[in-house]
This record gives sequence, C-alpha cells and structure tokens, in this order.
Amino acid sequence: MNTHIAGVVFDAYGTLLDIYAVEAQLEALYPGKGRALSLSWRDKQIEYSRLRTMSGRYADFWSITGDGLDYACEFEKVALTSAARDELMAIYERLPAHPEVPAALSALHAKGLKLAVLSNGNEAMLHKALAAAGIEPLFSHVLSVERVRKFKTAPEAYQLALDAFGAPVQNLVFVSSNGWDAAGAAWFGFRTFWINRAGAPLERLGVAPEGIGRTMDDLTGFLAA
Amino acid sequence: MNTHIAGVVFDAYGTLLDIYAVEAQLEALYPGKGRALSLSWRDKQIEYSRLRTMSGRYADFWSITGDGLDYACEFEKVALTSAARDELMAIYERLPAHPEVPAALSALHAKGLKLAVLSNGNEAMLHKALAAAGIEPLFSHVLSVERVRKFKTAPEAYQLALDAFGAPVQNLVFVSSNGWDAAGAAWFGFRTFWINRAGAPLERLGVAPEGIGRTMDDLTGFLAA
Repeated sequence: MNTHIAGVVFDAYGTLLDIYAVEAQLEALYPGKGRALSLSWRDKQIEYSRLRTMSGRYADFWSITGDGLDYACEFEKVALTSAARDELMAIYERLPAHPEVPAALSALHAKGLKLAVLSNGNEAMLHKALAAAGIEPLFSHVLSVERVRKFKTAPEAYQLALDAFGAPVQNLVFVSSNGWDAAGAAWFGFRTFWINRAGAPLERLGVAPEGIGRTMDDLTGFLAA
Repeated sequence: MNTHIAGVVFDAYGTLLDIYAVEAQLEALYPGKGRALSLSWRDKQIEYSRLRTMSGRYADFWSITGDGLDYACEFEKVALTSAARDELMAIYERLPAHPEVPAALSALHAKGLKLAVLSNGNEAMLHKALAAAGIEPLFSHVLSVERVRKFKTAPEAYQLALDAFGAPVQNLVFVSSNGWDAAGAAWFGFRTFWINRAGAPLERLGVAPEGIGRTMDDLTGFLAA
C-alpha cells in the first residue's frame, strides 16, 4: 500500500474472535442441534442489531445477544433453562481468538502499526473477551458502538475510528470477516480488507473490498504490499 | 376494537403476496435446490434493504431483489443464465396472492374499512404485482418506500401511511406477516396485527403485536372485536 496507514481497525466478533465456538457447548447441551442453534443465534443477534438501529431502538449487544439466543432456542424447539442460558452467555465473554490471530496481530504491532478494535459489542463484554483472548494490550483503541447507540453499518459507528485516530478515513484500513461489515466500511470510505473465512460469495452491494483473504495471515501481505 | 379505525395498512410481500411462489420455478431450474434458493434469495433481499438503509445507500427493491438472487445462486453454486434471471425476476412481478387474501380483503372493503398497502417494493413492481393478483382496486393507497428512499423499519417509511390517511398513528392498524415488520410498526405506534403464517417464534424485540393470527381470516375477527 503506497499511502500512509494511520491505523488498522478490526471488527471483533467473527474477525478476531471465533463466534462459532459456542457451537460445541450448544451441541453438548442439545445433541444434533449445535450447528443450527449456533447459526440461528448469530443470525438473530445481527438482525436485531439492524432493526434496532433502523428504528432508533438501541439496546446493547449483550442484551440482543441474549435475545437472539432466546429466539434461536424457541425456533429450534429446545428448552433453555436459566442455568444453560447463563452458561452459554458466559461463553460469549471468553470467545477464543481464531488460531492465527494473536501472532498476526503481534507481528503487525511489532512493525509499528497502530491497531484498533471497532465492534458492535458493548464495552464491558468487549474488554472481557479481548482480555480473555490475550490480545487486548495490542490495541491502541478499543471502540464500542455503545458510545453512539447505533450498530454497524451506521456511519456514526464507523466515525468512532476516525475520531479515535484523528486521521482521515482514507488513511485507515478496516478489517472484517463479515462481508456486510466490509461493505459498510467501504461505503464509509475506509480502505477495506475482507477476511472471507467462510469462502462466501461477495455481497452484492455495489462495493468491493480492496483486499480479500482467507485468514488474518493474508492481511499481513496486503498491508506490506 | 373500541377505537375508531381510520385505515388498515398492509405489508405486501409475504403478507398479501406469496413470495415463496418462486420456489417452484427455482426447483424446476435447479432440482433439489428450490427451497434453499428461495430462502436464501429472500434473506439476502431483506438483508440488503437493511444495510442500505442503515448506511444511507438506497437502491430500489427491484434492484436489490436481483442482487439477492445473484448472491443466492452463487451461494448455492448454481449458474444463473441471463434468461433464467429474467424469468425468475418476472415472477416477482406476478406473485400470487395468498389463497385467502382476495376474499378477506373484499370483506373488509365491503364493511367500509379504508385499506392501504405500505411496501418496501418500488412503485412499478408493486402496482404490477397487485394488479396481477387482482386486488389493487381494493386499496385507497398504494404506498412505496421509494418516496423516502429508506426501507422498513425506518420511521420515515411508516410515516407514509399517516401522511396518506391524514390520521393519527393510533387510529391505524398495521398488518404484516413479517414479525420484524410488525415489531417495527408497533415501535412506530401503530396498532399491529401479525399474520404468523410460518408459526415462527415471537421476535425478541421488546414489543408485541396487539393481535396474532395464522391467516388473513384471523384479521377479520380481530378488526370486528
């Protein structure tokens, strides 16, 4: 990349942290339904973030994560006890980093790049999860949309990164494994890198990420180019 | 209902019109994948409506319906020829009404209730579909979010119904088979009736419809109560 990079901004859930790590626990609790529950839970969590943003009805990510779990369990016709709910929600506070993430982040940090997280997660759950994954000290900024009470892809959410770095959008690289988040960031003006972990099709939103890879290791090459 | 009803406002796609009527044609084109393609197409169409609204990147419903089809076909790894695409999109212009809808609407109309449609669909596709289903003459207003360039659940979209009827929100009943649309309408202040055709769980959005039924016939009783 020829232009100066003032900072590299990472999405958290899915990008740094493995949100589908909940699948194993779901499968243990509800044999044969772990994957379906895991997918449905995530889908509803994201759907609720968007509906609440469009309608100006913000509720924090911890709350809507619980709402999504409740919906998913009813949809899959499994009983969610209070103890199981607490257990599953607790996993969300200690989601593991994807395997290659800590070393890749450390390498970028060692090169002097300024790193940040910009997440839909509220501050409490975000700090807990990043600390549990052992990567929190690598970030100059840990930014939660809680401050603007709108979830991504609202422009107000992405603006947090510009304010934190005091840098123009074109000097910031935004990294997400969520295709829709990469699209939202590109619309906003960031240089974007999509970590397409799932091998998904490109979202048809009239905008494309500048770079695409399969893991965080591919980002290293992109930033060095 | 004790209060005066100034109008009954209907969502179109899913509520009046059977969006999954595309499944048969998809199955004929791609044996074994009709249902998956139909669901994926609809999911993407809705997802794109929300992302574009949150990000202020409106594109009309016809356009994002095509985008959703393109994504769904790549996701399901089937080739979409230009001819097949035209054929499938044309179905969206002549989606059949759900079987009970024409008679139920006619009965409400005969009682002197003022009926309207408020849809994410753009005006051209909406008029074509309602005319093809033979129900267009029953509506006093056919309202498209095209006028405000934001999709539901944005408040600006729901406001169109108040402006058309010149009535306060509490005197309007909003009817949708989409749980998220019923929630958005309830947030906005309408009296709401959810036609839960799919037997889905109640959305966990902190708001509930005033009435719930399984078909349009249940609405008749709700309005008469």
